[in-house]
Amino acid sequence: MSYSVQEHIKNLPSKKKDLIKTEKAIRLDLSESPYPASPKVAKAILEAVPNINRYPETLGGYLRNALVNYTGAREEQIIIGNGSDDLIDLILKVFVSSQEQILVPIPTFPWYWLSAKAQGKNVLFADRTENFGLNVDTLLEKVTSKVKVIFIANPNNPTGNIIPRSTLIELIERVNCLIVVDECYFELSQQTVADLIDTYSNLVVLRSFSKGFALAGLRIGYAIANEVLIDSLYKVAQFFCVNRLAQVAGIAALHDLVYLRSQIQYVERERTHLIENFSKLGFTVYPSVTNFILIGTKTLDITSNHLVKLLESKDIYVKDCGFSPGLDGFHFRTSIGNYTENKALLTAVNEIISFPIFA
Amino acid sequence: MSYSVQEHIKNLPSKKKDLIKTEKAIRLDLSESPYPASPKVAKAILEAVPNINRYPETLGGYLRNALVNYTGAREEQIIIGNGSDDLIDLILKVFVSSQEQILVPIPTFPWYWLSAKAQGKNVLFADRTENFGLNVDTLLEKVTSKVKVIFIANPNNPTGNIIPRSTLIELIERVNCLIVVDECYFELSQQTVADLIDTYSNLVVLRSFSKGFALAGLRIGYAIANEVLIDSLYKVAQFFCVNRLAQVAGIAALHDLVYLRSQIQYVERERTHLIENFSKLGFTVYPSVTNFILIGTKTLDITSNHLVKLLESKDIYVKDCGFSPGLDGFHFRTSIGNYTENKALLTAVNEIISFPIFA
Repeated sequence: MSYSVQEHIKNLPSKKKDLIKTEKAIRLDLSESPYPASPKVAKAILEAVPNINRYPETLGGYLRNALVNYTGAREEQIIIGNGSDDLIDLILKVFVSSQEQILVPIPTFPWYWLSAKAQGKNVLFADRTENFGLNVDTLLEKVTSKVKVIFIANPNNPTGNIIPRSTLIELIERVNCLIVVDECYFELSQQTVADLIDTYSNLVVLRSFSKGFALAGLRIGYAIANEVLIDSLYKVAQFFCVNRLAQVAGIAALHDLVYLRSQIQYVERERTHLIENFSKLGFTVYPSVTNFILIGTKTLDITSNHLVKLLESKDIYVKDCGFSPGLDGFHFRTSIGNYTENKALLTAVNEIISFPIFA
Repeated sequence: MSYSVQEHIKNLPSKKKDLIKTEKAIRLDLSESPYPASPKVAKAILEAVPNINRYPETLGGYLRNALVNYTGAREEQIIIGNGSDDLIDLILKVFVSSQEQILVPIPTFPWYWLSAKAQGKNVLFADRTENFGLNVDTLLEKVTSKVKVIFIANPNNPTGNIIPRSTLIELIERVNCLIVVDECYFELSQQTVADLIDTYSNLVVLRSFSKGFALAGLRIGYAIANEVLIDSLYKVAQFFCVNRLAQVAGIAALHDLVYLRSQIQYVERERTHLIENFSKLGFTVYPSVTNFILIGTKTLDITSNHLVKLLESKDIYVKDCGFSPGLDGFHFRTSIGNYTENKALLTAVNEIISFPIFA
């Protein structure tokens, strides 16, 4: 008895389990919100639990309509996915054939190319500028007729910076392919190009409830684009891809923007605090408009991999970016935790770099 | 500005919204459990709500381990998906290239071929026997080297019957391609081939928490197969595809098998009641080991489409199967509802067929 695996999948790496080790672990490696979701979300979930024997509404149900006000897009211009990872998968399925390519300026969020490779589609990387910006002319040199989608995380992950609107517009106007602007940190950065979807039929804006809205565990992402394009994505989507509790949670979160803003203020205050202290310790700290910061370790002559491992031994988890395409071995990313978590992180880092072996 | 949509997607139909119309609607069209999930599930969800700002555990988290006892498979032989629809997508992605085919005995669950077509893969249909059984020789006539997966819902949906284990084994042994046995109604039918995954490397068993466990709203499916095959599926899966609340709900449901059995006894009692009464009314009622029944309307000289529309006007929803490949225009499927729902359905059907226009 035998079966065949598609050729391109054989060479993909196996996924490893990543279970939380202890209850006390401080997780700053996934750019999550350190604060719980709005109490209105909890209430909405409790009210919906008696109906979990029923399938979710199809096509995102009433959450799509709830997003109309928030995004300024029409309902037909919105698709809901099981997290924005799901929508990245869908976009690649619909708009890129196996002979075609995507273009990804790096360093950036890895799922763009991991998903493409899992689908047997080709990935081209382009370098960002020294400050992780985009140079449109440099990008255009890579854009042949084979390139069907360019993925731009904005703000960018793991670098934390944002590309100016004018640069994005220039790029959108000068190419024929699709430009996916991933604004999953929109609630923190407050900058968007979502208002341009009626102007540019090749623009897709991705959003998420995982970051500002603090709903990472529920998997809610959405995309905004012109109606024809959204219809194409829904043609390929599963009927029931968005969990019933996620749908009501998303709607409730949109009804508590006061809570959202207060949480973001906490994050901003803690971010300033972390940036100041990491700078004082001698690290290179990159500017951030998000709920994480990228930190360079070269000035302290310690690889990020080494630092991250030492932090793990203290049950504190940050993300080593030393292996990320586009970065060297001296970068890590930390979420902005709550006051206690950030204090523990700074204390631990201070202990590590004060230890004689690094002096 | 333009963008390209893959050729095979252009011809797919657009999806339509299917929102519940009124609070009082009786929904018997989706083969859901009419009973709420276990109280232990509700409790587990409430306890997990404070952590929804955190991403779910990857690779199905602790739910995989919880399934070891229940399924008899090892953890490495289990993959969790966002509903079994998600796993059907994955299986097609991994094991079928765009030049290859799947084989689907009909009538059956449509997502097998809808998903394949959305991925640009080819679909071959084979007829079931008169009683919706499988004839292995007839199937084998269709199996060329291009056929990579055969999908067999067992029990079958929408027909409600089950194929004997010996027939499945004969098929598995006589082909080289993958056989996916979709046992999403396993909790109702109590028949499985999951114990054979170590014997046959070309066997995949699909399961679901949507039916017996009454968790359709949470989207939890799983597949059981040999380790190498499961690893291939995980290579392509999204890291965070299973919602955090779904994971804890699944674990809690597995800890309350007493509740599960009591719910299934209710369904069986109501099924007997429905079958008796539809038979008395003169319909053709097909035997069922599931939580739905297939009903033929030809003996009453009314198309299922007409009957379903008339029921809808009374706010009662059943599934018209008159358009399903492999069935003619005189078949509909109804879930086994609770006592009140079933009574309302029978009353409404009786009213409709007693009306002079059908006499």
